[in-house]
Amino acid sequence: MPTMLGQNQYGKAETRVVRITRDGRTHHIKDLNVSVALQGDMADVHYSGSNAHVLPTDTTKNTVYAFAKEHGIESAEQFGMRLARHFVTSQEPIHQARIRIEEYAWDRIAAVDGPSHEADRPSREAASGASAHSFVRTGQETRVTQITFDGETWEVMSGLKDLTVMNSTDSEFWGFVKDKYTTLREAYDRILATEVSARWRYHWSGDDEPMPDWDDSYDRTKRHILRAFAETYSLSLQQTLYQMGSRVIENRGEIDEIRFSLPNKHHFLVDLAPFGLKNDNEVYFAADRPYGLIEATVLRDGAEPRIPLDLTRL
Amino acid sequence: MPTMLGQNQYGKAETRVVRITRDGRTHHIKDLNVSVALQGDMADVHYSGSNAHVLPTDTTKNTVYAFAKEHGIESAEQFGMRLARHFVTSQEPIHQARIRIEEYAWDRIAAVDGPSHEADRPSREAASGASAHSFVRTGQETRVTQITFDGETWEVMSGLKDLTVMNSTDSEFWGFVKDKYTTLREAYDRILATEVSARWRYHWSGDDEPMPDWDDSYDRTKRHILRAFAETYSLSLQQTLYQMGSRVIENRGEIDEIRFSLPNKHHFLVDLAPFGLKNDNEVYFAADRPYGLIEATVLRDGAEPRIPLDLTRL
Amino acid sequence: MPTMLGQNQYGKAETRVVRITRDGRTHHIKDLNVSVALQGDMADVHYSGSNAHVLPTDTTKNTVYAFAKEHGIESAEQFGMRLARHFVTSQEPIHQARIRIEEYAWDRIAAVDGPSHEADRPSREAASGASAHSFVRTGQETRVTQITFDGETWEVMSGLKDLTVMNSTDSEFWGFVKDKYTTLREAYDRILATEVSARWRYHWSGDDEPMPDWDDSYDRTKRHILRAFAETYSLSLQQTLYQMGSRVIENRGEIDEIRFSLPNKHHFLVDLAPFGLKNDNEVYFAADRPYGLIEATVLRDGAEPRIPLDLTRL
Amino acid sequence: MPTMLGQNQYGKAETRVVRITRDGRTHHIKDLNVSVALQGDMADVHYSGSNAHVLPTDTTKNTVYAFAKEHGIESAEQFGMRLARHFVTSQEPIHQARIRIEEYAWDRIAAVDGPSHEADRPSREAASGASAHSFVRTGQETRVTQITFDGETWEVMSGLKDLTVMNSTDSEFWGFVKDKYTTLREAYDRILATEVSARWRYHWSGDDEPMPDWDDSYDRTKRHILRAFAETYSLSLQQTLYQMGSRVIENRGEIDEIRFSLPNKHHFLVDLAPFGLKNDNEVYFAADRPYGLIEATVLRDGAEPRIPLDLTRL
Repeated sequence: MPTMLGQNQYGKAETRVVRITRDGRTHHIKDLNVSVALQGDMADVHYSGSNAHVLPTDTTKNTVYAFAKEHGIESAEQFGMRLARHFVTSQEPIHQARIRIEEYAWDRIAAVDGPSHEADRPSREAASGASAHSFVRTGQETRVTQITFDGETWEVMSGLKDLTVMNSTDSEFWGFVKDKYTTLREAYDRILATEVSARWRYHWSGDDEPMPDWDDSYDRTKRHILRAFAETYSLSLQQTLYQMGSRVIENRGEIDEIRFSLPNKHHFLVDLAPFGLKNDNEVYFAADRPYGLIEATVLRDGAEPRIPLDLTRL
Repeated sequence: MPTMLGQNQYGKAETRVVRITRDGRTHHIKDLNVSVALQGDMADVHYSGSNAHVLPTDTTKNTVYAFAKEHGIESAEQFGMRLARHFVTSQEPIHQARIRIEEYAWDRIAAVDGPSHEADRPSREAASGASAHSFVRTGQETRVTQITFDGETWEVMSGLKDLTVMNSTDSEFWGFVKDKYTTLREAYDRILATEVSARWRYHWSGDDEPMPDWDDSYDRTKRHILRAFAETYSLSLQQTLYQMGSRVIENRGEIDEIRFSLPNKHHFLVDLAPFGLKNDNEVYFAADRPYGLIEATVLRDGAEPRIPLDLTRL
Repeated sequence: MPTMLGQNQYGKAETRVVRITRDGRTHHIKDLNVSVALQGDMADVHYSGSNAHVLPTDTTKNTVYAFAKEHGIESAEQFGMRLARHFVTSQEPIHQARIRIEEYAWDRIAAVDGPSHEADRPSREAASGASAHSFVRTGQETRVTQITFDGETWEVMSGLKDLTVMNSTDSEFWGFVKDKYTTLREAYDRILATEVSARWRYHWSGDDEPMPDWDDSYDRTKRHILRAFAETYSLSLQQTLYQMGSRVIENRGEIDEIRFSLPNKHHFLVDLAPFGLKNDNEVYFAADRPYGLIEATVLRDGAEPRIPLDLTRL
Repeated sequence: MPTMLGQNQYGKAETRVVRITRDGRTHHIKDLNVSVALQGDMADVHYSGSNAHVLPTDTTKNTVYAFAKEHGIESAEQFGMRLARHFVTSQEPIHQARIRIEEYAWDRIAAVDGPSHEADRPSREAASGASAHSFVRTGQETRVTQITFDGETWEVMSGLKDLTVMNSTDSEFWGFVKDKYTTLREAYDRILATEVSARWRYHWSGDDEPMPDWDDSYDRTKRHILRAFAETYSLSLQQTLYQMGSRVIENRGEIDEIRFSLPNKHHFLVDLAPFGLKNDNEVYFAADRPYGLIEATVLRDGAEPRIPLDLTRL
């Protein structure tokens, strides 16, 4: 046979699971989108269609729901680890499992407004603070994680996407290469805006190290990214990216590597001169396409780079 | 000629304008998506292609940018009114202008975290509170408005979309009609979730009445919607809708009419019995399609209904 | 009570049904997205939450599937009529039903290539023509229809969306109004491109008239729209729109009214002068936003306009 | 410094270029979306913000437009190669260029209908065949390519996405593993539908080999994929995938490796028993999420696998 099977994987993608936990009248919510990808001894199903080694993708979906009940969802990372371990250890032909999870955040409804002091309608519930079982989706970034387990070693890559940020000043861009196709003018005060996609890889690989506190690590890493973006006087988006990455590596010992994909969401100063108006960095056109796309990894010195070149959508 | 021209309009849709206002080192941002639609004496351009009455859509785009500079953007409503008045009063053939605006909200970056007490990296900027010119898009609902002006009367319809809310209990659905195609079982404790689209029409029409405070009205109306959703013990999504609407009409004297389009974002209880597990309202499948769609208008007694049956995307 | 209920409707949106009909080894496919909206005596469910008049949206979904089996799907229009009649005549509280349907078209796989003359691999199936039960989605426009029935009168509005067309010449735009915000230059040879959304209303209302052949009418109407677009030397997109509409009204006696929503998909000539190059209508930037938006109705003389101002997404 | 820069790249993404070529009154169109990613000696811009090695992304956009004029667009592959060579050879600090291109296909308008024999309106243009400069977007699959050049070696990976196909019979799924979470029933006649994403890597790497005919290779490869899908009696989607891949490898000597990402677009047989109806493979629910996701590479024996695990969106 002149052809052969290469790298392959299969599983159920985008199983949407919502888990409610009740603490008396106070409920807690976890809202996940779980994608399972399994690798192993799968030549036969490709060559002959024999499913003797194939756990159906429908079963991997069922397992997500059953585990949400049996074990709860402490964090996306721990839930993913539980699933990965299950598939690899319970199915002989499965040698590796990769679990990808998106998590959507919800606020309690009254927490949106804080305590109510408005005159027009006092509300008992608002007076007592946040609602016990009413939620509004925050809608800001989406938290993501990817757990890979081969039966021995763990790899945890977490991150976020769709976090849109803007500095309305403290950004310049000049001193760049000019060739015969260059028309861009140098800028000494521009808007810098991007939609942050980031993935960071944890040092932890399941040996005797203690496991990080995944939720706390996520919150603090996001905060470092936001602050580094805000506090960097930027000469290029690459420089800002590096500041964001190195701030994380320097402050979060549990993270060895972080990669960003940063579209430069161009805000072009509108030329108002034809109308006799001066545009002193006040009115911008927010463009859709094309956009600059800046991508880089920042590593702890000596760490091995393992996050792939292209960050995936899921 | 056996055919004739009917209702028509034209203009530039989705002009993205970002307006920065500088108050010393502190910046303020308005981020809008503006769509202009003009009506008037436009038979010729349809019949013969004569553009003698046609102000180019490119010009309506330019006007958005020029007005953002000349007049600033106090609120989406006032900006839209300024544009509508301009087109109708400056162009003889234009008899009516309709301006639709989407507004995207931004928070100051440090405001995301509140004051920082974390140990791992003190930050001067966090200590002093919110960043002066660094922003993160809130990503929650999108605020919308539609201004219509015919040279004499104003109609202001504002609203919001993409506001996703959930009650994890206090929702029932039973006592419904059963016909030969009915298989749904009655529910005495279910999740109720929806993505709120709302449009409300202001009483104000430009006569001698004082103009509402548009931003304050928006904030309070959104809060009433959220609280009515949270506080209603629901026997049907229709009932919840009516509570949301009547709460707004009763509390906001400036609003005469409000319409909602509420997709019932079904969360189906997963059947875990095959795995020997009991699902006591803990594990749900969040479905995409199909979805119930509940739409209704709530009016102040005696008010004329004017919001159309279908809420538009833009 | 100072508030009251206005116009309302409810039902299941976006029920995805695929119906296979087997003619021996040859299969036929109908692929629809069906949305049901019911109106009637629905005050109680809004005021008190009583569902005594509410046929569940889940039941309307079931009815779609059951009818697909019991009656088949001859055309989207006839399937919608069957559903609308059922809801209005079988449920006392329901006074009006509106069924919206999207239809996705599929080609037989071998039909994609036509008969195969290629040398590299003769195929028995290709030799015998189109595959009997293998399909590829055409992916061009989406066909839509909306059926409204109030127990006596029928209204059928059909149409299409997402049909993207381009003329690479034979389009001009000049002689327009210039005001102080006008910078656009006159164009004597430009690209004209748009993504056609059209809705047409049939004269047929269920009285003693014979029913149109819906599929044939759709095919011919689409062809008239395409040809009118191709054959019109355009001085404005409005003129092209009117030609498209009047061509339909003049040739299709069964149609009384047609409305178009035509985004002007701008293709801007790129300024290559800085690189010492002349751009003789050869290289264009295809812009996303903003875009001109041209909307108008064309009517048979004497027909009553009934298609709403805004074409809906579904 | 405890942190260091890892793998990085930058460039302008999604430059939309439309190129018209005029052959008398007959026009030809190429409609591309071009993304440039450059790698090289870029440490400084990340560490210090010095742009001395940075050719602006705006310049890479300009280059796309200028090259479309200067050299035309023979095929996506050749256009990408021209761009890649330019960036690597003209800029000392740039060591590698990767060009990704999406291509959208257009048909001539009259070609949609074929010659017109309809009675209701003879048309001169239709009689003479396809329109010379009027086009309709086919809307089926999107063609993609990725060119990588490091100054010495070329890698060409082409492919397609969004090609939706369905077999309404000749698909089974049984004999799979059952564990305690398995509830799926075996299927002996099911619908098999997927949205094909494929990337294939050409053997050609720029040495003395003759270059493939890219357009012809694309057309024939697509045809093989479609036919293999149609002609395979399927026992699993993995088997169908392997048939599609091996058919390409066996028939197209210029291709060494092909990878597919195939979402299993589930069509679930609707249970009509509660309505007293038998569903004999006639009525299906087309589900959105979750979906099985089957991914694999098929290689020419001895070829080195180089297509990455995750196919990218762009």
